[in-house]
Amino acid sequence: MNFYVMTLFPEMIMHGVSESITGRAIKKGAINVKAINIRDYTTEKHGKTDDYPFGGGAGMVMQVQPIDDCYTAVLEMIGDTAKKPKVLYMSPQGRRFDQKMAEELALEDNIIFLCGHYEGVDERALEIMKAEEVSLGDFVLTGGEYPAMVMIDCISRLIPGVLGKKASAEIESFHDNLLEYPQYSRPEDYKGMKVPEILLSGHHANVEKWRREQSIIRTLKKRPDLIADAVLNKKEQKFLNELIKAENKPGNESEKE
Amino acid sequence: MNFYVMTLFPEMIMHGVSESITGRAIKKGAINVKAINIRDYTTEKHGKTDDYPFGGGAGMVMQVQPIDDCYTAVLEMIGDTAKKPKVLYMSPQGRRFDQKMAEELALEDNIIFLCGHYEGVDERALEIMKAEEVSLGDFVLTGGEYPAMVMIDCISRLIPGVLGKKASAEIESFHDNLLEYPQYSRPEDYKGMKVPEILLSGHHANVEKWRREQSIIRTLKKRPDLIADAVLNKKEQKFLNELIKAENKPGNESEKE
Repeated sequence: MNFYVMTLFPEMIMHGVSESITGRAIKKGAINVKAINIRDYTTEKHGKTDDYPFGGGAGMVMQVQPIDDCYTAVLEMIGDTAKKPKVLYMSPQGRRFDQKMAEELALEDNIIFLCGHYEGVDERALEIMKAEEVSLGDFVLTGGEYPAMVMIDCISRLIPGVLGKKASAEIESFHDNLLEYPQYSRPEDYKGMKVPEILLSGHHANVEKWRREQSIIRTLKKRPDLIADAVLNKKEQKFLNELIKAENKPGNESEKE
Repeated sequence: MNFYVMTLFPEMIMHGVSESITGRAIKKGAINVKAINIRDYTTEKHGKTDDYPFGGGAGMVMQVQPIDDCYTAVLEMIGDTAKKPKVLYMSPQGRRFDQKMAEELALEDNIIFLCGHYEGVDERALEIMKAEEVSLGDFVLTGGEYPAMVMIDCISRLIPGVLGKKASAEIESFHDNLLEYPQYSRPEDYKGMKVPEILLSGHHANVEKWRREQSIIRTLKKRPDLIADAVLNKKEQKFLNELIKAENKPGNESEKE
């Protein structure tokens, strides 16, 4: 998988992805990340890439020419490929990024990110690139660099060879639409705070059952919107039903939010 | 505003925030960002900060001792303050981060982020810190570092003195629950792609009207979930009603998604 990031802050990208899992994935050759400086493609003699918006308003707009020429250069880097590269523009207007989108994108060969800046990008640049707009959420950021790095991290984790087999399997547990169970590591007793007995029992099936139940309890409490789509076996479904029944019992009203 | 980031990758944080708006805000003294290496606080002689999870499973769990001691050190750095520092743990289980939460957090004096890693953090560390869980969205990342940087960027933009006055006012437009209008900058004609005439007219009121209408059109098309809460004047409400009516006209079915 090759990631091409069109940005005014290439060092920010390259430094960010060089750490942790993505850094190791790059070293192993499982992914490639190339940050391309849009500024290198401006024909303006002082290296300018933005200008005032037509019609007035605060802030500067990233101009179409440097982006267009940078995009052409990136397409040339990619060359002829069987599969068209995916072109994404990070914008709060776009489709919300989530794990499902990450799974789709992990099947691509080449992904091009255009990192805009808050004040905006000349609309014609987006038309030329036919970029799909992707949003990280309903909040305003300075630029698309962090969202691009977030997506690269998330997508990379799904590419074969990036995580170990066991860790990959672990991720799958996210797909049951349940939140994670609580984790504990050494020491068993930390300032009087003890690890739940069952985790020390060595009884694998009981541990598994306890963890699943903890996941169900947490999901119901913290993210009730997920629970309807949770993948549960019959016993777990019964456990959930009892939790819900207990919650709705009269006399328990005060505990509800 | 002081941001304290408890992390295993302090350089990633400090490099990230040194760029762009946050970098300038730090130089101006409008914000402070301090990344604290959790590893500096482990009592394990090889500098280890994680260990196997009790009960088995893939991956390693960040241990309670280094986090507890690191947290104590951060509280000492902050010292006695009138306002309790806000403690946040980046986790897909948390409350979803959005612009409203950013506005609330911009009123704090000290914010402490705990960046965990995917496999998890010993539950007792979270109990000790009484950390509020905050999520960037429904996706799995390697660690909390990018989410912390995203939040620092977003929150910083709301702190007085970080953005210019004009730009700050511009952000307010996000609050009408409308998406941004399209932006154009020079040249007027790029390879035959022209800037909409109205933006060159110099007629401020007409430009404003056109932009508001464009925002309404886009919001209705791309994020219909926002439109019910859009802040519109009477004429704009009428414009919206006509758009909706036109959309629902028989014969227009094929255009709907």
